Amino acid sequence: MVLDFYFDFASGYSYFAARRIEWLAAANGATVRWHPVLLPALTEVTKVLPSPLVPSKWRYVSRDTARTAQEEAIPFNPSSAFPQMLVAPGRAMLWIRAAHGEQAAVSFARTCFQAYYADGVDIADKAVLLGIAEAQGIDGAAFLAGLEDPSIKAQFKQGNEEALAQGVFGVPFVLADGEPFWGYDRFPQLERWLAAARRAA
Amino acid sequence: MVLDFYFDFASGYSYFAARRIEWLAAANGATVRWHPVLLPALTEVTKVLPSPLVPSKWRYVSRDTARTAQEEAIPFNPSSAFPQMLVAPGRAMLWIRAAHGEQAAVSFARTCFQAYYADGVDIADKAVLLGIAEAQGIDGAAFLAGLEDPSIKAQFKQGNEEALAQGVFGVPFVLADGEPFWGYDRFPQLERWLAAARRAA
Repeated sequence: MVLDFYFDFASGYSYFAARRIEWLAAANGATVRWHPVLLPALTEVTKVLPSPLVPSKWRYVSRDTARTAQEEAIPFNPSSAFPQMLVAPGRAMLWIRAAHGEQAAVSFARTCFQAYYADGVDIADKAVLLGIAEAQGIDGAAFLAGLEDPSIKAQFKQGNEEALAQGVFGVPFVLADGEPFWGYDRFPQLERWLAAARRAA
Repeated sequence: MVLDFYFDFASGYSYFAARRIEWLAAANGATVRWHPVLLPALTEVTKVLPSPLVPSKWRYVSRDTARTAQEEAIPFNPSSAFPQMLVAPGRAMLWIRAAHGEQAAVSFARTCFQAYYADGVDIADKAVLLGIAEAQGIDGAAFLAGLEDPSIKAQFKQGNEEALAQGVFGVPFVLADGEPFWGYDRFPQLERWLAAARRAA
């Protein structure tokens, strides 16, 4: 069973999902493919405004994320730069995947999420991204050059197109061998789905 | 504890919520105030398109509602007229509330939901609404006149404005003494919230 996991570093619910998905997959013998996307590119199809631009919705989302974090004991202390659009972490992840493989890319993504949402660090800052990469043993000069690599930029853009083609219109979004789950609030259902698939196998 | 419950008869997730909210309230010593609204009026603030107009989202919503109904053993067999905008059932509910009180209005609303989503009957059809009302002992001629009453139409419209003023931007939406819960998927959280409030009281 493969879980295609679509997420945006800018999304708090994606952070919740990113914390949980590897454990959920491991417990059910599934593997995760991480797909960084840009939510504003996906919401072209629904036309929904970014939540921070809708006062009543943003008040709700802020309350809801805090409440969920508290209920589930998830560290949640976002950077003061939150919310903002984030492009560099996604590109960085793709470059690391190309240069150093999947495990290094996922480790980088998880550290980015923790830095931004738990430790209050701004991951729009390339110096922060550089620090995270170097702590993984990645060469800093190559990493910074990679962030500006036109083929990486194109690949990140293309990822959004591929997500849309798969029917992904929001984040976090999981396709479990094609079965779609939208939202961190669908994770309990996803977990039951995986357990049932494992029993059936 | 009062639960202000905002719903649209046109929304499948509102149906799920309407089936559950009275039990959830009763089990926790809360009372429910039912507020019929028109989702397209609320989504003016988020600009999100109606889901049926976005093919990928509607495919997802269709799959998700069916899956949730199956998991929770909720009868789900919508009318062939679904999805569509529904104005008459909301107006009818408001007229019944004014003429016959809250209990009759809620009973009417629950029967409408069941007719449309479980029994496959089109509640846009005024003959169907008439039948539901008459089965409750309501005078048919007065009911049909009530549906066209300009003050009822105005009250339905005003309900959307009041919902927006309360920060409601989607359905189903519950305010539990002001604490906001958006979506049927927040009902487990709402249930835990009510239980905690009851323990604290």
